[in-house]
Amino acid sequence: MTTDVKSSARERLLEAAATLTYRDGVSIGVDALCKAAGVSKRSMYQLFESKGELLAASLEERAAAFVATLLPAADDGRPPRERIMHVFDQLASQAGAPDFQGCRYLAVQIELKDQNHPASRVAHRVKANLTAFFRAEAERGDASDPDLLARQLILVFDGASARAGIKADTPAGLIAPTVTVLLDAAGMR
Amino acid sequence: MTTDVKSSARERLLEAAATLTYRDGVSIGVDALCKAAGVSKRSMYQLFESKGELLAASLEERAAAFVATLLPAADDGRPPRERIMHVFDQLASQAGAPDFQGCRYLAVQIELKDQNHPASRVAHRVKANLTAFFRAEAERGDASDPDLLARQLILVFDGASARAGIKADTPAGLIAPTVTVLLDAAGMR
Repeated sequence: MTTDVKSSARERLLEAAATLTYRDGVSIGVDALCKAAGVSKRSMYQLFESKGELLAASLEERAAAFVATLLPAADDGRPPRERIMHVFDQLASQAGAPDFQGCRYLAVQIELKDQNHPASRVAHRVKANLTAFFRAEAERGDASDPDLLARQLILVFDGASARAGIKADTPAGLIAPTVTVLLDAAGMR
Repeated sequence: MTTDVKSSARERLLEAAATLTYRDGVSIGVDALCKAAGVSKRSMYQLFESKGELLAASLEERAAAFVATLLPAADDGRPPRERIMHVFDQLASQAGAPDFQGCRYLAVQIELKDQNHPASRVAHRVKANLTAFFRAEAERGDASDPDLLARQLILVFDGASARAGIKADTPAGLIAPTVTVLLDAAGMR
């Protein structure tokens, strides 16, 4: 019974951290997080060593969903360039939502300004995995320079989601043509 | 005499706001800003209505230097694509510095998460002016779609500076080849 309650408090804290830091930023206070989760500060500090550890854990927990939403199925049989385009189609679809604030893994690193923060390290790893997906597909598609293409694609991913997040631009008519130009220039199948 | 002292306090506050928010983020407290500027809170609130107004004013004051550092001279006689490349060469040079944290005008909008904040409005305008420069050069260089090219270039500007700022990538071997591909695809002179 005690374990059940603790597990539930943990889940509510992870959810509150993910939702509130995305909406309001990493400077959100522990009081606000605990209040939103309906958990006492004492319980929070029994579950997480610090607010930073809670934030890192919330990013870690979202990582599987982030990957599942963006990446195509491993064995979908489509050509590499279609598999890459799938990621950007998913991004364009997410970025059209009114509450879209950009990629949470980029935002948290920009906001924390400390690449050694536990949450920054989680965010960096999640995005490095996305870059590795681009790199593997670029190689499979015989890109002239798979490293360069992967770096270009993650640059477009971050640039487009940041600009959509601050409402400076929309993904429509921008992401797909830009990715297409880069894939073509790399001679991607 | 009183005017001199007030003017100097104002300058010190603008400098502290620019330096500390760039280094630590927009959640930096008024106490820390006043302490760094050597100005009392009372004096600060006589000069600026709020911390938000101080932040907006500090971004506004930096805008002229931002433009002067990035943009080529209006009458340098170089072809449009060289004038565009000049901006990215300057970005690459800035982004190589160890204390580079990305574009301050992008960061402030991501951090504030409120496009109606006075500082977000200043930041948005400064970047819109950079996009307008790209748009004008794209038109002069007979780009096939000047609007699209301008949107692509500011996307690369923001994506590359954000990723260099979080130390996820470096500008070397990335920015110039990416911009070149986009200029070529647009048929830019």
